[in-house]
Amino acid sequence: MKNPILVPELRDLLHRKKVGILKSFLEDGHPKETAEYLALLNPDEIWRIINLVNKELRVEIFSYLDMDVQVEMVSGTRKKNITELLMGMGHDDRADLFQHLEKDLVDRLLVLLPLSERSDIVKLTSYKEHTAGAIMTTDFATLNENDIVEKAIAKIRREAPSKETIYYIYVINDEGKLIGFVSLRKLIISRPKKKVRDIMKRDVKFAYISNDREIAARIIEEYDLLALPIVDEHEKLAGIVTYDDAMDILKEEQTEDLEKLMAISGGVENKTYLDVSFFTHFKKRAFWVIALGIVGILTAFIIEFFSGAIEALIVLTFYMPLLNAAGGNTGSQSATVVLRALTLNELNFKDIFKVIKKEFYVSLFLSLCLGAIVFSRVMLLTNPSSIPEEFTLISIAMVISFSLALQVLWATIFGGVIPIIATRFKLDPAVVSSPLLATFVDMGGVIIYFSVAKLVLGI
Amino acid sequence: MKNPILVPELRDLLHRKKVGILKSFLEDGHPKETAEYLALLNPDEIWRIINLVNKELRVEIFSYLDMDVQVEMVSGTRKKNITELLMGMGHDDRADLFQHLEKDLVDRLLVLLPLSERSDIVKLTSYKEHTAGAIMTTDFATLNENDIVEKAIAKIRREAPSKETIYYIYVINDEGKLIGFVSLRKLIISRPKKKVRDIMKRDVKFAYISNDREIAARIIEEYDLLALPIVDEHEKLAGIVTYDDAMDILKEEQTEDLEKLMAISGGVENKTYLDVSFFTHFKKRAFWVIALGIVGILTAFIIEFFSGAIEALIVLTFYMPLLNAAGGNTGSQSATVVLRALTLNELNFKDIFKVIKKEFYVSLFLSLCLGAIVFSRVMLLTNPSSIPEEFTLISIAMVISFSLALQVLWATIFGGVIPIIATRFKLDPAVVSSPLLATFVDMGGVIIYFSVAKLVLGI
Repeated sequence: MKNPILVPELRDLLHRKKVGILKSFLEDGHPKETAEYLALLNPDEIWRIINLVNKELRVEIFSYLDMDVQVEMVSGTRKKNITELLMGMGHDDRADLFQHLEKDLVDRLLVLLPLSERSDIVKLTSYKEHTAGAIMTTDFATLNENDIVEKAIAKIRREAPSKETIYYIYVINDEGKLIGFVSLRKLIISRPKKKVRDIMKRDVKFAYISNDREIAARIIEEYDLLALPIVDEHEKLAGIVTYDDAMDILKEEQTEDLEKLMAISGGVENKTYLDVSFFTHFKKRAFWVIALGIVGILTAFIIEFFSGAIEALIVLTFYMPLLNAAGGNTGSQSATVVLRALTLNELNFKDIFKVIKKEFYVSLFLSLCLGAIVFSRVMLLTNPSSIPEEFTLISIAMVISFSLALQVLWATIFGGVIPIIATRFKLDPAVVSSPLLATFVDMGGVIIYFSVAKLVLGI
Repeated sequence: MKNPILVPELRDLLHRKKVGILKSFLEDGHPKETAEYLALLNPDEIWRIINLVNKELRVEIFSYLDMDVQVEMVSGTRKKNITELLMGMGHDDRADLFQHLEKDLVDRLLVLLPLSERSDIVKLTSYKEHTAGAIMTTDFATLNENDIVEKAIAKIRREAPSKETIYYIYVINDEGKLIGFVSLRKLIISRPKKKVRDIMKRDVKFAYISNDREIAARIIEEYDLLALPIVDEHEKLAGIVTYDDAMDILKEEQTEDLEKLMAISGGVENKTYLDVSFFTHFKKRAFWVIALGIVGILTAFIIEFFSGAIEALIVLTFYMPLLNAAGGNTGSQSATVVLRALTLNELNFKDIFKVIKKEFYVSLFLSLCLGAIVFSRVMLLTNPSSIPEEFTLISIAMVISFSLALQVLWATIFGGVIPIIATRFKLDPAVVSSPLLATFVDMGGVIIYFSVAKLVLGI
């Protein structure tokens, strides 16, 4: 996305003091794109450039800068307009910035702000990570139920510049409790003398400060909301989460879910694939790869235990990878669909028997298909010389295809059930990654395979 | 979600003609939840209940009903208010409904509507599936650049009830070309006599009718938009896509990507895990499971080819599952992170060498770790009696650990590169599923393993 070609030009314009051109560059572009260009300059240059435009746009561009650039910019010697910038920022973005600053810088910056803003920052930065409280913003618009429409519109118009959104306005009673909401659309088409109470919607969706941020985002997604009010334990309105933050959260959660599914650990940073160093990539992947490698060594012990059977009938080893792959694939599939259904709140623990039933039928059909294919393969394409005389080809084909069917059956049901059981124990169901599952399925598969062979063929 | 307990009560209220209670049930609830309850009644009963409330709410509840219920409701004998309902619906929802109706019913319903609405439906239903055109709506608000603010506000207020959103208003010139946009927020805080031209933003993001719907949704996500204008090939404004539709699209695309990653085929229906029949689940999973099962049979041939080496050294088979699992895990990991980066537009084909370089270093570290662990396992925990005299333990440990390292190296790079190459050939990178990858990695792994063994140990 970033276009380094522009950097020398921007720098040149700055040195030649071409204020007009720089100003229109900032005013014509989307603040997000402007921020991407500016990020390649040094903090001092960025300050000089963004100070050319009005406060509103300056704050917007600043808020789109990467967090490390923002931190650098407020870390230097005190800059002109820094107080104005901090006052103008969205309360959630500002709290986020303060969370990334050194303790003594926080103190130095806080004294520049009025008391109310200071306590807002302290409060917002105090909420636990990944909760709705930690992502909400406090610059929301409210009305009293007794306000009349024309007065309400005038109030909203006055407050608009300092509010995160004015399209959903929350109605509170005298104790600050959330009792309804009204959209700006409804407000402007209602008769001027009507009371807010008579046009507001009372069935207002909300989340608690302590709820997981994903819960808040999912409510926004489900009910097509522009913003969701967040209340404290006394049901007092404490903040709002807007739809754009919800989209970001859902995107991050999806990346995280996907990575967990593939046994990649560590949170998602707001960095692109190429921006993340190879060592960070390594660290995120190493834990599970190594852990599963160690567990996989157990499988080696199991096979060693059955080495007599292998010696007696080498042909069995030809189908080991196929058996493991079929178990891994079908187990991962059922785990994936169940996991997705859990993420989207379509399932919960009490549905476990329905899931078992459904996965049983699915796996029965899959195992019949695969079993038939492998049975034919063994019957039709086995070199007779590779079979010792004491065994018949059909008995070997039956052992292999029956083991495969059994492996698919148990892998599919196991894969579907484990994520549900994880939720029962308040574990994130996504910890049950596809590789972790496959490792256990491999072990089970080897035991099934050689036990069936021993029982049927007596080896 | 659905609460069947309420159905008999609703039915009872309807039969006892308790209009007041039913009306307040509809008016107090969220239309989405109301729709979920009502869906359990028959079409006739739903009509009678929703006809109790005003048009606006009736349309909203109807639009939240599942598509099959909507179809049933308009399919019966002609109902009171059906024209009003079709006129009131969002143009995108309406086009969606018409797409699900029988040809002759479409004709019967179209004649109930005025010409302009008819041609709107015909046009919207003509766009290709999965394009921005197919999901956009035509009930958007526009202004002329020469309008003044107070006149603009009056116009918006007048049109508000029939528009999908009035929070973003698009500015067009006399030829209908999109030249800018203004937010309702900006409009209500601007001076009444200002011209729209002077307050509008000119840098307006847009997509084309023929663009993939995911492209439109990603722009909305990236720039935190409330709506995105969609233009035709002449850059004339043709429709808009709103943020809530973008969220739905991204959710569906994510489910689809996740399913593809696990080799589950078929589109995502708007149904929950439990609502989908086991046979549909089976069909979605069977294709790849069976296809990969057949490909996996090739692996059996490869191992058969090396059966001499296995006979000479049974101990090699103990580590086959571990080798395959390590390759599958590391390959899936790199495929997943690269795939996610491609989906989020962080990468494109020209970055392929950067990806190879990054994955090379990651895999080098991973293979060193795993190689060391397996080397120690073989050296320390191998029963000497399982090694024929002509081989030394250290040479066997070196073969196994070196093969494992090589397998991790190639699997990781292969996994990272394949999705990028797929995009080069305009293939959906997500067709390169983790199981498909694992199947090829398995094959490669077996070849690497036994070739190294043959070369080093001369078996």
